[in-house]
Amino acid sequence: MSQPRITVWHEYRHEHENPAVHAIYPQGMHRALAEGLGVHGFEQVRTATLDEPEHGLSDEVLETTDVLLWWGHKAHDEVGDAIARKVVQRVLNGMGLIVLHSGHFSKPFKALMGTSCDLKWREANDRERLWVVNPAHPIAEGIGEYLEISSEEMYGEFFDIPAPDELVFVSWFSGGEIFRSGCTFTRGHGKIFYFRPGHETYPTYYHDGVRQVIANAVRWAVPRSSAPRAFGHRQPLESLPANAGESEVQ
Amino acid sequence: MSQPRITVWHEYRHEHENPAVHAIYPQGMHRALAEGLGVHGFEQVRTATLDEPEHGLSDEVLETTDVLLWWGHKAHDEVGDAIARKVVQRVLNGMGLIVLHSGHFSKPFKALMGTSCDLKWREANDRERLWVVNPAHPIAEGIGEYLEISSEEMYGEFFDIPAPDELVFVSWFSGGEIFRSGCTFTRGHGKIFYFRPGHETYPTYYHDGVRQVIANAVRWAVPRSSAPRAFGHRQPLESLPANAGESEVQ
Amino acid sequence: MSQPRITVWHEYRHEHENPAVHAIYPQGMHRALAEGLGVHGFEQVRTATLDEPEHGLSDEVLETTDVLLWWGHKAHDEVGDAIARKVVQRVLNGMGLIVLHSGHFSKPFKALMGTSCDLKWREANDRERLWVVNPAHPIAEGIGEYLEISSEEMYGEFFDIPAPDELVFVSWFSGGEIFRSGCTFTRGHGKIFYFRPGHETYPTYYHDGVRQVIANAVRWAVPRSSAPRAFGHRQPLESLPANAGESEVQ
Amino acid sequence: MSQPRITVWHEYRHEHENPAVHAIYPQGMHRALAEGLGVHGFEQVRTATLDEPEHGLSDEVLETTDVLLWWGHKAHDEVGDAIARKVVQRVLNGMGLIVLHSGHFSKPFKALMGTSCDLKWREANDRERLWVVNPAHPIAEGIGEYLEISSEEMYGEFFDIPAPDELVFVSWFSGGEIFRSGCTFTRGHGKIFYFRPGHETYPTYYHDGVRQVIANAVRWAVPRSSAPRAFGHRQPLESLPANAGESEVQ
Repeated sequence: MSQPRITVWHEYRHEHENPAVHAIYPQGMHRALAEGLGVHGFEQVRTATLDEPEHGLSDEVLETTDVLLWWGHKAHDEVGDAIARKVVQRVLNGMGLIVLHSGHFSKPFKALMGTSCDLKWREANDRERLWVVNPAHPIAEGIGEYLEISSEEMYGEFFDIPAPDELVFVSWFSGGEIFRSGCTFTRGHGKIFYFRPGHETYPTYYHDGVRQVIANAVRWAVPRSSAPRAFGHRQPLESLPANAGESEVQ
Repeated sequence: MSQPRITVWHEYRHEHENPAVHAIYPQGMHRALAEGLGVHGFEQVRTATLDEPEHGLSDEVLETTDVLLWWGHKAHDEVGDAIARKVVQRVLNGMGLIVLHSGHFSKPFKALMGTSCDLKWREANDRERLWVVNPAHPIAEGIGEYLEISSEEMYGEFFDIPAPDELVFVSWFSGGEIFRSGCTFTRGHGKIFYFRPGHETYPTYYHDGVRQVIANAVRWAVPRSSAPRAFGHRQPLESLPANAGESEVQ
Repeated sequence: MSQPRITVWHEYRHEHENPAVHAIYPQGMHRALAEGLGVHGFEQVRTATLDEPEHGLSDEVLETTDVLLWWGHKAHDEVGDAIARKVVQRVLNGMGLIVLHSGHFSKPFKALMGTSCDLKWREANDRERLWVVNPAHPIAEGIGEYLEISSEEMYGEFFDIPAPDELVFVSWFSGGEIFRSGCTFTRGHGKIFYFRPGHETYPTYYHDGVRQVIANAVRWAVPRSSAPRAFGHRQPLESLPANAGESEVQ
Repeated sequence: MSQPRITVWHEYRHEHENPAVHAIYPQGMHRALAEGLGVHGFEQVRTATLDEPEHGLSDEVLETTDVLLWWGHKAHDEVGDAIARKVVQRVLNGMGLIVLHSGHFSKPFKALMGTSCDLKWREANDRERLWVVNPAHPIAEGIGEYLEISSEEMYGEFFDIPAPDELVFVSWFSGGEIFRSGCTFTRGHGKIFYFRPGHETYPTYYHDGVRQVIANAVRWAVPRSSAPRAFGHRQPLESLPANAGESEVQ
């Protein structure tokens, strides 16, 4: 496989407003994510942020992106509807999408899921343990039985998503909750992975295991050269004589 | 189970414009559908149509509907966005939804799926055979190995929907196509069944097997008394001493 | 629905050998399970145990059982292969099967899953909380956001089962594990529900919520009057002229 | 990815007994399959056949096989139970398995599915069209909207398998049937793909599209370096103080 073209999209607001976040991610969470992808051998990694023109997601950028990562939290509403629709359309056309943590409430993810994507949460330094429930899955490659994060925000069920196509991770939280933390979906020709960890006040995107999962997910989500999306009226087919008895293979 | 409250929603335009449709469904397709439900013992069946105020779907009607059937075709765009959103929200809150034939392109179905819901089609009197691929499913109850409809519009793959939770029927068409014709989905607390047959120029909704499937689907989609939808911030839980050793069951 | 015919199968050995188990279930766990079904309105409940002739599962009993519950633990190997095969065949023919707790290692369940069904475990009075992750499912009907059991044996992932058709419950354990605790499967015409709780040294089968879940599962697993299982050679079909243009519905 | 080690297992009986089969596959179907894999760049391809010692599947061969292809038909019963069990165990431990055509009735496939794997069939030169219903799937990579085979044996539903994890192809047959022709399953750490075409009296394994699908499936089924299979008793975990407030990432 040639190098996939990756775009890390980040809201990039907390770092400017909260010194604690700035201390952890002085150049922004997107830089930490891009750096982690670099460690795993990805060479074509761009970033894009909310406050750039078109949120950094021009048609040219979207058309040349194979896999898009998305982190947003406090400014979901500031993402323009037209751009959110373009992201959705690109996913249906084959672009991979990795939705991180609070991105569960982003416009593109909610539109692709068709549900509220709501959940429960608590900021109380819970210990999180992400158990692998599908060890054959390529997104779990190289991960042991579980990932442990010593402190994270808690997300709890019911998580209002459609049943995922595949469930890869389930989180245990010290405060008493579980959460479907690693979920795959296919929408149109595009593959989607939702991955829970990554609250802005923790150094989660420096965690080796978390970086491994994200790198695996990118490889898994790369678009395949599949048939064009062909819909609409179909001309009457040629007559199909039953049991025609031809022996050549077409 | 007490009697579920059913609302049959119908666009109800073809019957007024196309004499051939009027000849088959002189009182409208919704009446034929309601009549079929009556045959199967349902006693609380209302109808609602596009040209009624609020399309017949006032808050009061929606709140007192357990299962909604939806048939639309040529006027999807005339369904108000606000009403479509209310239908979606009611499904997430538990209302069952049976989407029929060209309803695949309706606003509520597309919003709940998150995809284009596009497909291929041909109006050429194809013979259709709907094979049961999940004979244990309650929606296939009482159906033999397949249903046959002597003439129908063809719908062909790729059908741009998320992978259904359960696939119950797959159609064979004489012209050379197959189609995932009976698909279940869960969105939020609501259950959704997409059922393919029912082009307006054929008497499909008088077909005994088709009526049986729709009646089965209504029973399957009735909402269950589940937990309230509770999201958002969660108070820190009481301390949870590990291995507390209590023996009483709470 | 008329009354389903239920058989509760129980190994019934611990009660005779461990005074602590006898103290909790003086008449056996099967009696507690049967009693719980009675509370939920089931009137046709039999029991069968390992040490009866044919383990209480004669052909006549199996043929007249709509839903079979199965609890075994220390004597899985003493279940005769021929009887285990008959149970499997009855499930493929439509009988529902509810597999409880350590029944994960029973011959019928392993044969129906095709995997080792192995898992991790610890007997240390863990607190267990079973979170509902599919609130629309009939097996979760009447259950709130979660069930809590103050002390239970721990079961941990990876649980070596095929991905369940539907995941209804995921357990949280105070010691740090999660487990897919409520899983549905369909095999042939039969429906299967695996439900985790019920270690013999705890009074779990007196727990109101646990009893509710088991009653729901029985209702869900009742066989449907579906098509006969028809396989093998199929005579050439009558000629199927494409687009024959018939208008009657057959 | 380095070169996966592939073993093509073939019953290799029809070629010796039926001149028509011999004419199509003079060196055996396994050679045609191996040749097709070579065309797609696989360099480590071995074959093994029923009449070799241990059916060509010694422990050494199985342990050094990443993906096993399996074609059998008339001599399923001659495969030794011990060897069939070893194949199953290797799949649970991570080996990929591609089951072809009449291999649906092989001992390893039936054991891994837990069902009868029965179906309907007819040898009458049906035209077969395999429609892609999951265009984002890597097994459909490079395939257009469908594959067409001008003459094949018909297989019809109900196909008694568990609901596949993913459905990739559905076949249309000119005689009136459909069939779930491309199905993925995961069992333990191993990935399984069932692919329908390949009756011995047709030159199906020279078909470019069929060869493409099989090559794709091999790539998809290569085992991943996942966690060891660890089951059984688990020592009590260290005390897990809730909300310990640590900030380092482990």
